[in-house]
Amino acid sequence: ANGGFALFRKLFGLIVASPPRVLVLGFAAIVLSGASLLMMPFAHTKSAAPQFIDTLFTATSATCVTGLIVEDTGTYWTTAGQWIILAMIQVGGLGFMTMATLFAIVLKRRISLRERLVLQEAFNQTSIEGIIRLVRKVVIYALTIELSGALLFTSRFMFDMPFGKAVHYGVFHAVSFFNNAGFDIMGNYRSLTEYVGDPVINIVTMLLIVLGGLGFVVLADLVDIRNPKRKLSLHSKVVLSMTSILIVVGAAVIFIFEYTNPGTLGPLPFGQKVLAAFTQSVSPRTAGVNTVDLASLRQATEFFMVILMFIGASPGSTGGGIKTTTFTALIGAVIAMIRGKEDIVLFKNRLAQERVHKALTVTLFAFGIVILATMILSTTENAAFLKILFEVTSAFGTVGLTLGLTAHLTLAGKIIIIIMMFIGRLGPLTLTYALGPRKERQLYRNAEGKIIIG
Amino acid sequence: ANGGFALFRKLFGLIVASPPRVLVLGFAAIVLSGASLLMMPFAHTKSAAPQFIDTLFTATSATCVTGLIVEDTGTYWTTAGQWIILAMIQVGGLGFMTMATLFAIVLKRRISLRERLVLQEAFNQTSIEGIIRLVRKVVIYALTIELSGALLFTSRFMFDMPFGKAVHYGVFHAVSFFNNAGFDIMGNYRSLTEYVGDPVINIVTMLLIVLGGLGFVVLADLVDIRNPKRKLSLHSKVVLSMTSILIVVGAAVIFIFEYTNPGTLGPLPFGQKVLAAFTQSVSPRTAGVNTVDLASLRQATEFFMVILMFIGASPGSTGGGIKTTTFTALIGAVIAMIRGKEDIVLFKNRLAQERVHKALTVTLFAFGIVILATMILSTTENAAFLKILFEVTSAFGTVGLTLGLTAHLTLAGKIIIIIMMFIGRLGPLTLTYALGPRKERQLYRNAEGKIIIG
Ligand SMILES: [K+]
Ligand SMILES: [K+]
Repeated sequence: ANGGFALFRKLFGLIVASPPRVLVLGFAAIVLSGASLLMMPFAHTKSAAPQFIDTLFTATSATCVTGLIVEDTGTYWTTAGQWIILAMIQVGGLGFMTMATLFAIVLKRRISLRERLVLQEAFNQTSIEGIIRLVRKVVIYALTIELSGALLFTSRFMFDMPFGKAVHYGVFHAVSFFNNAGFDIMGNYRSLTEYVGDPVINIVTMLLIVLGGLGFVVLADLVDIRNPKRKLSLHSKVVLSMTSILIVVGAAVIFIFEYTNPGTLGPLPFGQKVLAAFTQSVSPRTAGVNTVDLASLRQATEFFMVILMFIGASPGSTGGGIKTTTFTALIGAVIAMIRGKEDIVLFKNRLAQERVHKALTVTLFAFGIVILATMILSTTENAAFLKILFEVTSAFGTVGLTLGLTAHLTLAGKIIIIIMMFIGRLGPLTLTYALGPRKERQLYRNAEGKIIIG
Repeated sequence: ANGGFALFRKLFGLIVASPPRVLVLGFAAIVLSGASLLMMPFAHTKSAAPQFIDTLFTATSATCVTGLIVEDTGTYWTTAGQWIILAMIQVGGLGFMTMATLFAIVLKRRISLRERLVLQEAFNQTSIEGIIRLVRKVVIYALTIELSGALLFTSRFMFDMPFGKAVHYGVFHAVSFFNNAGFDIMGNYRSLTEYVGDPVINIVTMLLIVLGGLGFVVLADLVDIRNPKRKLSLHSKVVLSMTSILIVVGAAVIFIFEYTNPGTLGPLPFGQKVLAAFTQSVSPRTAGVNTVDLASLRQATEFFMVILMFIGASPGSTGGGIKTTTFTALIGAVIAMIRGKEDIVLFKNRLAQERVHKALTVTLFAFGIVILATMILSTTENAAFLKILFEVTSAFGTVGLTLGLTAHLTLAGKIIIIIMMFIGRLGPLTLTYALGPRKERQLYRNAEGKIIIG
């Protein structure tokens, strides 16, 4: 145990020295190992070996919990191959969640006293022992939720298939959905379309996705709420309310736009329409499963989904996107401006200016990347613009939904999407870390100048 | 003269009381008068009266200097009708430019001492007499540039048509282009495609567009620069450099993307390729003329043009969009953040935080409007997504370029685009006015709270 502790201390020292580098190199190592494993004959059902670009694509998609696939997970990969993919999902999803939480601790070294106090209050621990407890807590929370999901899924799948297969399906989909990975083994790119009206599958799926997308800090906060002395932190309040708003508004918009669409909600009875609208509202942020055929959606709905995919889940979660808190800060800034107020007030708390700037920067960064990749793919791929924008946003937001482009990507297109999945998963966090407020104030400030805006 | 002065004083009193209301009502009045005039039999060449929605569309497009048209200007309207349209362009373009400049003066009542000093320095006048001088200056500058353009155009068109027609063409296009209106009377929706390789037409067109798009403050600054004691203001420096950057980068991107495209630059000799690339780079911000067939452009180029259209021209100019200064502030914010600097420094001047917030707000507002209208049109129109996004951005940015959708808009589509042209022209300025920093500080501030971003 002492040797293990020494190893951990060493590992932790490395992480503290340069967390973004550890994160990026670690993810790259997992992706490359996974891609190599998937090349092995036991991993795929076809006799011909897969192209390396395709296993690289699959491994990146799994590790970055994106869910875009160039080969159908249910039929192309063997059960062994599927477990390799699931391992990458678990390591990638949980590993990222842990790292993001650790970052918050590590970052303390560079942040203000006030923020340090907030963090101490949130985690109530600062020592290495405390951090081990923290990591353990993250893992326990994740495994508990995944296990519950797997049990519920298995008990439902048992009605449709043999017990062994039901367990395999239950575990795979519970882990995949909690990690917002969007991988499924239903076969033939069907995702959950067979279960569009099934309440158990839909509700468990949504719960797994939403819980995975809240982030560890919020999960911990929710568990601790049983303690009457503790109140929800501002962060948790913002995450929970914005998540609820986005789910309800998203479902309403999809319900209205698709109500009469014969290819999607049209033929369903009213209750199933509501259920499907909610599932399709939850999924783009950023799970990547679908119960209706996305290519049959109206253009307006597809574009709306692009916006949902761009917003994504919450910080330090298994999901991607610019994050609900970033979106809240932006909306808050606009509302405060229009009302002529100086401060953005959320739940009677004034939002620090520096956070608003960070939100702006993260959003513009995301925007620039998505626009750039969309422009490049517009030249390399022969597809409608919205299909390309959808694909790129899906990759960047680690969503995994597609309007059908993934399977037809050119080599250049595959490389760009691989890069987008990687940047989409690691970019915002690494950027946020890099944007941590520095202690050194500039000694010399330039005179203030004004330009006319708007 | 005294009566006129009293009238002006009264008018000015009204403007001071509520500038946005005067602006919006004034523009609405011009649009409605123009639409009614265009209904008259002498205005159109067909015997059947036009639909009111179409004259309303044309009048809005002219007054808001957008340039989107549902009827071909060169063939559908008589010469009289064309002069009515030109009058709306002149009143709408110049009137807006004057109002925007006046706003800067009027706004002084609500702004800080520092800003007041900047404005006094810029205009060197505060009295009503000074404002009359200012308005006269705006009009003189505009008319001088338009007259020069008309002379150059006429002398070129004389080679292709009779003198009288050449004068008509020269005046119409000079006024239309300086006001960034994008209307042309070449006939059959050709715009300037016949002159793709003509250096005189292209260069004069670009000069008119760019000068019109710089805004009065910068024009005045450029004229005053002859005085060795005066230096360019920070605002002028930012506008001039960002305008140059956007033109050159835009031309380079279009040149590269379209180099081999047989429908656009492909068949042209090298020099004409360069010329056409520059014209197509200048025009989307926000003139709306084209020398190549836009529908033949590659998707990547079309999307790139959407971005250029969104950025638009400079404040207080005849052009639209979120403005070059807003774009500069956003880019500056991202660069400062990535470098870990607290201040955005432009030409050794620190940009006021409040300006960055204003830039963010204007951009998000523009974004929200464009997204909303695109979603609505996606349900009302039967067209590819990029065509719709292009059309909406073009209307909002008062650009007037189209991929061919305008002529096929449904009634609902026409109404939405009319609203977009109106909001696109008046929204940002009115918003900026509304966003003027208030004097009253909040007496009570909430405690600062933090959320995790990104
Ligand atoms: K996903
Ligand atoms: K225009």
